[in-house]
Formats: sequence, C-alpha cells, structure tokens
Amino acid sequence: MTGLPRRRLLGYAGAGVALAGAGAAAGAFATRHDEVKPAGLADAVPFHGEHQAGIVTPAQDRMHFVALDVTTTKRSELVALLKEWTEAARRMTAGQEAADAGAVGGHPSAPPKDTGEALDLPASALTLTIGFGPSLFDDRFGLAAQRPAKLIDLPKFRGDDLDPKRSGGDLCIQACANDPQVAVHAIRNLVRIGFGRVAVRWSQLGFGRTSSTSTSQATPRNLFGFKDGTNNLKAEDTDALREHVWVAPGDGPEWMVGGTYLVARRIRMHIEIWDRTSLAEQEAIVGRTKGEGAPLGQVKEFDPVDLHVRGKGGEPVIPENAHIRLASAEALGGVRILRRGYNFTDGSDGLGHLDAGLFFVCFNRDTGKQFVPMQQALASKDDMMEYLEHNGSGHFAVPPGVREGGFWGDTLFRD
Amino acid sequence: MTGLPRRRLLGYAGAGVALAGAGAAAGAFATRHDEVKPAGLADAVPFHGEHQAGIVTPAQDRMHFVALDVTTTKRSELVALLKEWTEAARRMTAGQEAADAGAVGGHPSAPPKDTGEALDLPASALTLTIGFGPSLFDDRFGLAAQRPAKLIDLPKFRGDDLDPKRSGGDLCIQACANDPQVAVHAIRNLVRIGFGRVAVRWSQLGFGRTSSTSTSQATPRNLFGFKDGTNNLKAEDTDALREHVWVAPGDGPEWMVGGTYLVARRIRMHIEIWDRTSLAEQEAIVGRTKGEGAPLGQVKEFDPVDLHVRGKGGEPVIPENAHIRLASAEALGGVRILRRGYNFTDGSDGLGHLDAGLFFVCFNRDTGKQFVPMQQALASKDDMMEYLEHNGSGHFAVPPGVREGGFWGDTLFRD
Repeated sequence: MTGLPRRRLLGYAGAGVALAGAGAAAGAFATRHDEVKPAGLADAVPFHGEHQAGIVTPAQDRMHFVALDVTTTKRSELVALLKEWTEAARRMTAGQEAADAGAVGGHPSAPPKDTGEALDLPASALTLTIGFGPSLFDDRFGLAAQRPAKLIDLPKFRGDDLDPKRSGGDLCIQACANDPQVAVHAIRNLVRIGFGRVAVRWSQLGFGRTSSTSTSQATPRNLFGFKDGTNNLKAEDTDALREHVWVAPGDGPEWMVGGTYLVARRIRMHIEIWDRTSLAEQEAIVGRTKGEGAPLGQVKEFDPVDLHVRGKGGEPVIPENAHIRLASAEALGGVRILRRGYNFTDGSDGLGHLDAGLFFVCFNRDTGKQFVPMQQALASKDDMMEYLEHNGSGHFAVPPGVREGGFWGDTLFRD
Repeated sequence: MTGLPRRRLLGYAGAGVALAGAGAAAGAFATRHDEVKPAGLADAVPFHGEHQAGIVTPAQDRMHFVALDVTTTKRSELVALLKEWTEAARRMTAGQEAADAGAVGGHPSAPPKDTGEALDLPASALTLTIGFGPSLFDDRFGLAAQRPAKLIDLPKFRGDDLDPKRSGGDLCIQACANDPQVAVHAIRNLVRIGFGRVAVRWSQLGFGRTSSTSTSQATPRNLFGFKDGTNNLKAEDTDALREHVWVAPGDGPEWMVGGTYLVARRIRMHIEIWDRTSLAEQEAIVGRTKGEGAPLGQVKEFDPVDLHVRGKGGEPVIPENAHIRLASAEALGGVRILRRGYNFTDGSDGLGHLDAGLFFVCFNRDTGKQFVPMQQALASKDDMMEYLEHNGSGHFAVPPGVREGGFWGDTLFRD
C-alpha cells in the first residue's frame, strides 16, 4: 500500500488538471526539461532528479524556510533522520500525507502520522530542498574532512546587523508551494519527524515570490515596489546554470557534484523611509523605471541594460551607484547568481512600523566568488543600503538531487 | 481622470474574468445578494453597501490585520484621515492604485503616491474593514458619550496570557484578499497615508483562512488538522445574520446600526504537544472525526450534531467537554457568532518550536452576550485549552458600510 493521495479540494480555483500524486513520485529520473516545464498551481513537481527541486523549479508563490540545529550527537541517528525525511518529502511533494497510514490514520490510540492540515489540498507544486550548514561539519558526526572548501563562513559585510537567532543552522529546509498551508504543513511535519534529533533554530514565512526563475513567469515586485530579478538566471538557460549554479566534477568535493550553495539573508526594508523618497531618486537608486521596470534610458523591461550611455552633462544615465549596475555581471567580471527570494511581513517592530522586507535566497556554484563580491559591492556602494538592514544570514551546501531509492545527502553519508 | 486601474497580471492562473476596477467602485449600492455571490479569485468586491465588506464576504484566502494608535489629538485630523482612507480603500478594493496619480505617478520630484508592489496584480477580492477600539472613545476626540455600551472591555479569561504589544488599539483595519501581496500592499498604503496621525500598534499576517462564511466554500482546516467552522454562520442565512451579527435600531447607539463588533484573539497553538496526542483523544477533544470532520457518531461533515446520543456505558458520544459541544448554540442558550479567522506562522519561538496558531476573528452583535459567554465556557472547560495560549486580544466596534460619497465612520463623526 502506498498511501492515499490527499483528496483534491473541490472547487479549488486555478487547480487546472491536477495530476496524480503517486504517478509523479514514482516517475522516472526527472530530466532538466521536466523541471523547467511550468507546473500548474496545483500540480506535483517531481522529487527525484539530478538536482534537488526548488532551485530552478519555476518559483512558486509562497515559501516556508526553516533552519535547524541537530540535537543528537549520533551520526546513525542523523542518517536515519535524513532517510525518514526523504521518504516524507517524496510523499508530500506528490500530494500525499507525510506517512503511509491512510487519512490521518494509524491506530486511534496512536497520534496521527500526519498532522492533517493539508489533507484536502493538492500538491500545490510543493518542493522541499535541503542544505547543510558549516556547523554540521564539526566533530560531532565525523564530517570535518568532508566540509566543502566553498562552504565558507560568510564575511561580515558593511552594515550587517545580524541576529544570531535568525542566522546559521546545522541544516536548512526550504519549502516552496503555491499554497502556503502546504508549505507550512511540510515544514511542520518534517520538524515533527525530527523530534528529539533536531530543533528549530529559526524559520521564515515568505508570502510572495520576488524572483522569476523561468522565462514562463512574469517578473514580480519587491516591497520597494520595483520589479525584481528581471535579468535573473532562468531555468531555460542551461548553459548559464552549468556555469553559475551547479557544482561540477573538479569543483570538489565529489559528494557535492550536481549540488549548489544557498545563501539566505533576511533583509528588513525600511519601507516608511523609502516611501518618502521621490520617484526620481528611487529610480536612480534602482537603475530602472518603477512602473515598467525598464533600464533607465530604455523603454521596456527586457530592453538590454547599457551601462555606458551618458546623458546631459556626460553623467551616466544609469548612475554609478545604481543597484543594477553594481549587481551586474558586467561590473562584477561575469559573476551571476540565481535569486529565489520572497517578500515577508512579520507583524510590527514595536516602534510604529511594519517589520517587512525581503527574504533573499540565492543559489550559486561558489559563494566566495559569486555572492560575496556582489554583496561586498552592494554593501559598500549601493545607495539602497540606506533603506536596508541585513539581520539574518545563512550559508548552506545543497547536495545533489535524490535518485530513486536514495536519500537526502546520501553522497555525503556514503559509508 | 479617475486613475488607471492596475494592470492585470499576464498569465495569472485562476484569474478568470477579472472585472474592471472603476466599474465596480462606482457601482450602485451593493445588495446583500451581491455580497454573498462568490467572487473569482481576482475579482473586485464592491466597497459600498449597507454593511462593510469583509464580514460576510466569502472568506478570502489571506489576511493582513493591523491595529493602530491615533497619535494626533485633533478630531479634525482624525476625520480628515478617515476620509482619505476611505478614498484609498475605495480605489484599492477596485484594483486601482491607492491614489489618483497614474502608474506610481505624480511628479518625479515627489514620492510616488502608491508604493507600487501591487501594480501588476488584480483586485484579488480585496476587502478593507475598519473598527474602532474602546480607547478611541476617551477624552481626546470628544467621543466619550458615543462609546457603545456593547463595546466592553473584555474580561480576563481563564488562562489568558495577553501581551500588551499584541493587544488593543484605537483603530483596526482588516485586509483580506486572495493574494497576500494585495492585502499587505493595502495595509501598508493606509498606514503610510496615516503617517503623523497614526502609528502601527501591532499587525498580524494570516496565511490561510480557517473559516467559511458562505455555503459556496469548502471548510478549511486549522493547524490542529481539523476542519474548522463547519457550522459557522453563513452569508446566505440572512435571518441568522440579522439575529447574531448586525446591530439593529434599538440596540444603541444609532451610529452603529448596520455595524457589528469584532473580536480578535491571537491564539498560539502548541502544535508539538498536540501532535503527540492520540487520534482518539484529538477527536474527543474536538468532538468530530479528523479526516471527514463528521460529528462523533455520525458519518459526514454536515450531518447534524446530536449532543444527546449516548454510547456504550451511557457515556455521551460527543464528550461533555468536547469543543463543539461547549461552543454550540444549544449549550449556550442559542448564542452564535460569525467566525472569520486565519492560520498564522510567525517564525519560531526561540525554544526549538514554530510560533504557529490561529488568529481568531469573529463578528457578533453583542460581544458581552455572545463571544464572552462562549469564551468563558471554552476557557473553563475545553480540554483543547491545554494546547492553546491566548496572547493577543482586541475588541472593536465596526461601523456600518459606507454609502457613495460617505466615509468610514461618518455616522459617528456626523457633525
């Protein structure tokens, strides 16, 4: 018995032709083409593949991200947990309950194996992506020798005001879905499975995506009101992904081939101050028009960015410190990253303001050569920094995808 | 010029036939029938009407709720703000920008009148509902004599652990929409318009609805994994709404006729403990089956609740302290309320757990005779209380709906 797929929510608008859970989960090795194909809002995204899902998967609308500390000191318990998690992730991404017990099932005298709040909901394009933090590679689990050199401790960037309670973690799990209840349900059930072995260090809900990762998606807006990530790496550009995202043989260590590195930054935006800034200044800071999102001096969003055009008086049309100039591959010697962040609003700050901003997530092949120089350029020169506060940070090695019968991180724990 | 409607998001799945913003805003007096008609995910909900929208409107998927303190002491400034807010609410619920200035517009040397993050999004069934807290009726604005007797200071309930930073407020605004970015955008822009006159006291994001308020909606699940609000009051039952929700002539004061009273409670759920409870105990605490949501002893969700059936040994099939018994109209002498709450997850609690629960919102005609006795019964007898922590609370008088040319609260500030 493989367990019942969760029931389809009757009348779920936009559900489209939801596919069967079991079929997708048991599907063959996912090709890159499969991953790129945009899923319906309610469809299942294949779990197995060369790479983990949730990276180049067209960015879903909602996210729940959790960082965990491992509380067991036994390697065998950690490995057992990774296997249990993988099985639950395989099921939930296919739209099933977390465990094989029928609807909220098992024996009445036992706790239900699934917490139940997603019972009526479709798969909702749920992806679950795991990462390993630098602290996992200490003495506890015998992993010190296998820590990737590229899994660096991030340097302190100018202006950083990091809260230890929102930073770090031995592990992270990113849940993305088109229904937030499905994403929250998945994280909650994984945390529950880990009871006694892991504890939640921090978690973040993202209510709206701020990046496109596929040419099939419209560019969303961040809480500064600007389109964000117009020139992001896209799933369709497999050559660029190979160059900038996926760890290749020779990059070392071998267990990371097909993986990538995730950087998370909780960026509080001082939206009240931003909102008092003139349209012209906002556009000069970003380097794009606000309405259309066109590069300054151009007309349409996807018009090419030309950093060399000069206007009246010889001043560059896209200012020297404009965000899109500082973050451009041209200014950074060819560096690009795959951004996959989300807007957040976490209540208020006790000072009369909303606590809102961007939960920045990016994936890159070599954080020290990609994210770090980009963030150093932005932190030191970007006029936007005046409106930002980086108060959370994490860096994680994201292992390659899981093959059928495998488990999260099995290339690392192969012994 | 009436301002451009926000552009429609190309390819927004489930958008259906989004209607024009301006037409909806300028529409005639909304009949009760119009309010009940389920909107498409992207449609506009009429702003004008006998009652405010967002009460019997079929519950949208997402919510952003804010409580504000009034910082000006001038009645004229408060009235001016209510008029400005009404105009912005009228526009945003119709899918337009917050102010009449064209796309993020106005002069380049001035800040944009709209913050921009909802520019490409449809109306998304946005509703904006205002309420006045007890503290508004102090000496500052000459309103003391007009405080409704029914706008009581809530009693302390057994087990209450209220955080002053999550409680009270001179004003509240509830934004509900099918897209969270649209709800957050609306609150943010209203807060912005109020700069210098109001300050955010607390705010709460709800990611998933936990109530149906229309027979057209499926019953959603709360974070205990149970269907919630099966026997909620429904918009279609206008007789029951008249009896239990809407303030009638003679209820006093006159300015509240057509209004109602809103109670908000932030209820942290100790989901980790709940998840260790057996299925049988969970079902006994709730009084319903977990999978189907049927009353214990019955088969289907909407089978009638019979509190008198006894099983083996003469014990009631629905236990004496079951949640649905304690909260039933039968047990409470006919008391009913309209529930309209949302699930929340606000990161973690610093102790290894998620900070998750239910942001309870209800509307009733007389809080002292409806919500209070119900909550007293639950707080003193409900076994579910063991898993709950009420840490935020608010009570607000919700004035009647706005007629064309009117403004929020104009029946109170008529002078």
